[in-house]
Amino acid sequence: MDSTAFEAAVSDLRGEIPPRVWSLLVTVFGDLAQDGSALPGTVLGEIMSRVGIKPEAMRVALHRLRKDGWIASERAGRSSLYRLTPEGRAQTVAASPRIYATDPPAEAAFLVLTDPASPLEWTRNDVWVTPHAVLTAHPPAGAEAFATPVDPDRSLPRWMRDKTCDAMTVALSADLAARLTRTEAALATAGAPDPLQTAALRVLIVHSWRRIVLKVPELPDFVLPAAWAGPACRAGTARLLQRLPAPGLDRLSAAA
Amino acid sequence: MDSTAFEAAVSDLRGEIPPRVWSLLVTVFGDLAQDGSALPGTVLGEIMSRVGIKPEAMRVALHRLRKDGWIASERAGRSSLYRLTPEGRAQTVAASPRIYATDPPAEAAFLVLTDPASPLEWTRNDVWVTPHAVLTAHPPAGAEAFATPVDPDRSLPRWMRDKTCDAMTVALSADLAARLTRTEAALATAGAPDPLQTAALRVLIVHSWRRIVLKVPELPDFVLPAAWAGPACRAGTARLLQRLPAPGLDRLSAAA
Repeated sequence: MDSTAFEAAVSDLRGEIPPRVWSLLVTVFGDLAQDGSALPGTVLGEIMSRVGIKPEAMRVALHRLRKDGWIASERAGRSSLYRLTPEGRAQTVAASPRIYATDPPAEAAFLVLTDPASPLEWTRNDVWVTPHAVLTAHPPAGAEAFATPVDPDRSLPRWMRDKTCDAMTVALSADLAARLTRTEAALATAGAPDPLQTAALRVLIVHSWRRIVLKVPELPDFVLPAAWAGPACRAGTARLLQRLPAPGLDRLSAAA
Repeated sequence: MDSTAFEAAVSDLRGEIPPRVWSLLVTVFGDLAQDGSALPGTVLGEIMSRVGIKPEAMRVALHRLRKDGWIASERAGRSSLYRLTPEGRAQTVAASPRIYATDPPAEAAFLVLTDPASPLEWTRNDVWVTPHAVLTAHPPAGAEAFATPVDPDRSLPRWMRDKTCDAMTVALSADLAARLTRTEAALATAGAPDPLQTAALRVLIVHSWRRIVLKVPELPDFVLPAAWAGPACRAGTARLLQRLPAPGLDRLSAAA
């Protein structure tokens, strides 16, 4: 993939809001070394430079991630090796199914009405639509809550759907869906990307979707706002990641 | 019907709480002269004495009903005639379908969730189970409220059912159901009641049920508390009124 086409694709995928570098690095580790494998500093530097991050910004972010316990580092001759700590891995593994899912996070939603006099303990990532009513994929057992399935074929009122996802995230989803479509079109006419280009594109794609999907409740798309473009983002992400298989660390190290 | 059996039946139907005399008179007019016919004071006196109301108490209550505009009176020789005013008739006619209904007041119930930011105007006699959720037989049209039918085959949670009817009214319904059953048994073995006895028994039956049914929302019985005995009261009242057809005013006047 020639550098003009690659840089245009990167620029389109990055959008106008600069990514947080430490968060982007979390995506890199999650996508390329979730099993705890070591990433050489040189490989990290080459990928980050391809997505437009300067070496100094990367060093600051790596320092922060080490300090916060996400990653550990070790010297290896004149270079450094970085890997996820067990804590960092646990968080990355926990988020992974949502980020890489090809299916919606739930098939069904229920509206549950709870007794104002004895509120339920609620631990899941569900959506309270009134002070005593919650939209959830997991209705409680027992007779003390009223639970009714939400009919996928009858739209919920707008005010309820609007509570499931803030307007900014909805707008970002529509924006990302358009960018993913353009990226697919660009890749269809460009030459094959090399391993470092592939890693960089994957990181931008996964990171863009991750910033959206982790802000959204695990509910079927039909209870989200009408303008929610999550299904298009999920499908576009899946198609692009299939088209851009993760290069092995050996190929990345050889190229860096 | 001999006077011992009749007095036992009256005593059982009256129960332990003495009825309000003016309210009992409203029932008499509603049951015997809802069309605005005149009831002679002598007939009223004979019926009320049979249900245990003293003449002085009846005079005070008639005075109050006249003052409040429920009834009008006119002299007729040495006696007085009483009839419902148009206003009194309108109120009596409005309550009649509920009191004399043989069917439940509604077939279906809906749970409606309203937008906390723009509460619905609500004019019907419905039941708010939380500050933003209402049980109603009449779901609103339009897309801005979430309405779901209540499944008759799945019990609502107890806390929801308890909001549809206060515990006192539920207890009164169970008590009345038992009294109606005993009255049916007593009538089965007693001789036929005369017209004034018939009128008195009807008044006590209708009045007892009226005091309960008008306190209860117009919702299907399955959303009311489990101990609600409304269906038994409704059926027992209907059977007894069929067994005790209203005597015509001519027969009552002749007997008084």
